[in-house]
Amino acid sequence: MNKAELIQQIRNKKSYLCVGLDTDLDKIPAHLLDREDPIFEFNKQIIDATRDYCVAYKPNVAFYEAYGAKGWMSLEKTVAYIGKTHFTIADAKRGDIGNTSSRYAEAFFKNMPFDSITVAPYMGEDSVTPFLQFEGKWVILLALTSNKGSQDFQLMQENDEQLFERVIKKANTWGNTENLMFVVGATHPDYFTRIRKIAPDNFLLVPGVGAQGGDLAAVTRNGINKDCGLLINSTRDIIYASKGTDFAEAASKKAQDVQKEMENLLLENKFL
Amino acid sequence: MNKAELIQQIRNKKSYLCVGLDTDLDKIPAHLLDREDPIFEFNKQIIDATRDYCVAYKPNVAFYEAYGAKGWMSLEKTVAYIGKTHFTIADAKRGDIGNTSSRYAEAFFKNMPFDSITVAPYMGEDSVTPFLQFEGKWVILLALTSNKGSQDFQLMQENDEQLFERVIKKANTWGNTENLMFVVGATHPDYFTRIRKIAPDNFLLVPGVGAQGGDLAAVTRNGINKDCGLLINSTRDIIYASKGTDFAEAASKKAQDVQKEMENLLLENKFL
Repeated sequence: MNKAELIQQIRNKKSYLCVGLDTDLDKIPAHLLDREDPIFEFNKQIIDATRDYCVAYKPNVAFYEAYGAKGWMSLEKTVAYIGKTHFTIADAKRGDIGNTSSRYAEAFFKNMPFDSITVAPYMGEDSVTPFLQFEGKWVILLALTSNKGSQDFQLMQENDEQLFERVIKKANTWGNTENLMFVVGATHPDYFTRIRKIAPDNFLLVPGVGAQGGDLAAVTRNGINKDCGLLINSTRDIIYASKGTDFAEAASKKAQDVQKEMENLLLENKFL
Repeated sequence: MNKAELIQQIRNKKSYLCVGLDTDLDKIPAHLLDREDPIFEFNKQIIDATRDYCVAYKPNVAFYEAYGAKGWMSLEKTVAYIGKTHFTIADAKRGDIGNTSSRYAEAFFKNMPFDSITVAPYMGEDSVTPFLQFEGKWVILLALTSNKGSQDFQLMQENDEQLFERVIKKANTWGNTENLMFVVGATHPDYFTRIRKIAPDNFLLVPGVGAQGGDLAAVTRNGINKDCGLLINSTRDIIYASKGTDFAEAASKKAQDVQKEMENLLLENKFL
């Protein structure tokens, strides 16, 4: 999915919601556990229940890898099931020397039809650019993450520049706003204004709303641009809204609530 | 494998060689391609041919993931085949928020019997510590990598400290020399002296000798400590020493050459 199509989806649905698929056998409803592939069955029902209210899905690859080859198959089925109507994000946080990053890119962009992958920037240019060689695919590069540990290294400062700012500036010389987004955590709402100065036109993927405590309204006010420019991820609040047989219905209701809130924020911030 | 056992292996074999298993269907001998699992068949023969000359194996996870669930099964079989006689490294460069890193740790430490995993430090403490919760398992944290892109962010400097130094110092407050190693590329031999000042007792995993141009003698001289403290990785020079039916024999010969060179360096540097 290219940038124009993504923006159109946001306009159509009045939503910039991304639903995280961190599917965990310990957390999904018990009645699914005797299915042949409980993870895929759960995802399928969550996707059917939420697809009208979100523009993107983000399976967290760790939750599939934790089940080995079987988990990998659940992931393959999940991304195929989502289809072309939604922007798909492999939340994999990969990154290695050039010939190795090429292999990761193959895994997610050729063997699976993901639109994008999250990438860790620590190893620099040649670890990121192999992912940018795939026409129509996106890198979503970690900049300022939502977790407590984001303060350990990402705020390191040389002269007037912090590490996450250097990451954004350098990466924008490797890619462009049609193939490069950044991860910026909702737990740092004040930083969005600064980030928009150095990345006015990139989409930002924003985790940390909900369970991690980020503020949707503040993030939207400080981060929105002419294209909306935001994908806000929510996971646990939606997919685990209920542990009962009504889990899909509860997820649908919760996703719709978030969509309504987003619609209001898009109006307030004059995107709609 | 714990630190004392690893040191004993190095003494017994007079080798600190780690063989990288970046197994690529485009590069392995053609006669293996009609086997049921050509990747595992290749690895098996390489392992049999080199196990007397090395102390560790490092499958590069990207090369398995690139083949999806099937590749994942080849990886599972490979680590099982290596067994307990060698230190096993999942070269995965993972790292995510706490509950996600726990899942990656499960994948490599519980579902597969790897001794260690390479981890990217960008997300800080809570992305690294979940891997340190597994008794007897190791984190090998990226510090100063061997690739050109290592200069983009890892050398960023605040006051008198560069990013890779901050990574090493902070990480040594999260783990200790029994569960934490660092990746330092052989392409930076002069940095080893500085790194030994802040990490005198950690093992260092050193890629970049061979195809990437690092100098084994210089790295050893500057990086060796009382426990040897080095695992030097070589991949392409060994596993792709021949593309013919004699590939295993060629790999064995090459690994033995490196072992001999290492034995001399261990003598010269008074470890033996």
